[in-house]
Amino acid sequence: MSTRIAFLKGHGTENDFVIVPDPENTVDLPPAAVAALCDRRAGLGGDGLLHVVRSAAHPDARHLAAEAEWFMDYRNGDGSVAEMCGNGVRVFARYLQRAGHAAEGDLVIATRGGVKTVHLAKNGDVTVGMGRALLPEGDVVVSVGERSWPARNVNMGNPHAVAHVADLDHAGDLYTAPSVGPAGAYPDGVNVEFVVDRGPRHVAMRVHERGSGETRSCGTGACAVAVATARRDGADPAVTGTPATYTVDLPGGTLVITERPDGEVEMTGPAVIVAEGEFDSAWLEGVLATTTTG
Amino acid sequence: MSTRIAFLKGHGTENDFVIVPDPENTVDLPPAAVAALCDRRAGLGGDGLLHVVRSAAHPDARHLAAEAEWFMDYRNGDGSVAEMCGNGVRVFARYLQRAGHAAEGDLVIATRGGVKTVHLAKNGDVTVGMGRALLPEGDVVVSVGERSWPARNVNMGNPHAVAHVADLDHAGDLYTAPSVGPAGAYPDGVNVEFVVDRGPRHVAMRVHERGSGETRSCGTGACAVAVATARRDGADPAVTGTPATYTVDLPGGTLVITERPDGEVEMTGPAVIVAEGEFDSAWLEGVLATTTTG
Repeated sequence: MSTRIAFLKGHGTENDFVIVPDPENTVDLPPAAVAALCDRRAGLGGDGLLHVVRSAAHPDARHLAAEAEWFMDYRNGDGSVAEMCGNGVRVFARYLQRAGHAAEGDLVIATRGGVKTVHLAKNGDVTVGMGRALLPEGDVVVSVGERSWPARNVNMGNPHAVAHVADLDHAGDLYTAPSVGPAGAYPDGVNVEFVVDRGPRHVAMRVHERGSGETRSCGTGACAVAVATARRDGADPAVTGTPATYTVDLPGGTLVITERPDGEVEMTGPAVIVAEGEFDSAWLEGVLATTTTG
Repeated sequence: MSTRIAFLKGHGTENDFVIVPDPENTVDLPPAAVAALCDRRAGLGGDGLLHVVRSAAHPDARHLAAEAEWFMDYRNGDGSVAEMCGNGVRVFARYLQRAGHAAEGDLVIATRGGVKTVHLAKNGDVTVGMGRALLPEGDVVVSVGERSWPARNVNMGNPHAVAHVADLDHAGDLYTAPSVGPAGAYPDGVNVEFVVDRGPRHVAMRVHERGSGETRSCGTGACAVAVATARRDGADPAVTGTPATYTVDLPGGTLVITERPDGEVEMTGPAVIVAEGEFDSAWLEGVLATTTTG
């Protein structure tokens, strides 16, 4: 086990990450250690951790090594494993570019959610293929306090309820989860998006992520919002044969979402590296001693 | 103006800081740049920033240079200047020790709140002289929901209302400020502490800091709690001639507070360096371009 860990810190629309470059997968990162590194006050701080490993060096990605050289071993801030994170993939790609492992243009990245296609643009923005949206049938209603809105059920691999509202302030402080009905519509909980129009194919949103409360950005939420708004506007790319592109303003920045006629949803947005360094070795030894024996 | 800024990140009882070593005061840190560095998602993140400067090199501390070699140019997370921060002084001292600027034992540090006496212990804990407590006369009452408690008015350079309660959960979520009366008792607002007994001269507390909500730690709050509890226990060092020492558990860790017969309150607690690195120069240039022209 190494007691030296290099890191970078970065964010995509203010969804922020501790990045741990570890090509040969020599850094042991048990869940409690990840939680300690991501702790915003006692550690460095981040919504999650991007462990950067060669696919060939990681048991979860070895089978993808012929397709994608790099594996995004994504961890949530509590140390648990997650399949995918759209904002995380953009930051991951930006890191590969900065480290000289990837050039401007197309790139593939292995994740636990499969191989993702990424495009690194000259201006620094990154485009990620987010898969297809499913639109389960059935009416859904979102409520906050005295107000209720009809909502669209959109599944981007995770469940969303998208409500078009007159004013984003009507969502309240989003400190507690909005009510979503009918009972049973979302057996695993739901992410709730509130949307207002800003102009032609341009909306603004706020989101309540299940388990996290209001967040500055949610990549799959922005995709769900674009797809739900396209349907409201009568723009279904599978029917029209034309891609539908929406600009989505979130509290943490702006994403551009395109749904293609083949159903694939592409998300384009910024990815920023803020700092680079190394964890203090004495601190790290203390963390690892606690987390591996505790 | 430098576009390379080295940093460390550290905390004292989970009150966390971006540390910027800058002995000759060559780094320009306008308020908006400090706020950008301390932003937890778009920047590195911290409750505040400790700008480490030689007293002789800073206009606010030059008059103290003969007494104290180093000046803690403390900034709040929003970029505003603050006089003092007890948890910050401990972390500042730990940095000086790590950088080879200070050895185990006694040390003086210049702050905008005057010259502070610090002791670096062998076990890593740091003791800071926090000044004297004032105990304004007059009954104070703290209320949360249906419950109310008599409280003690303690001023540690900033105002506190200390309430001894049966259960820390009775303080509620502390998402909103507790009510404190009578009206006019605290014209500049107040920090509110809730305290329970844990054993002989051992208490646990939660705190609502004015303007910040519940925090993991508040150094002056722990001092106010120790002094208020000593008075409740009939232990006034000025009367007994004996120091009164209390162990105070906070959500972010434990502080030991001693009130001496001469009235000086000393706070002892941990100070931890977590990481060290450098801000990304392209990111920093963007931040400084925005903040110096905006």
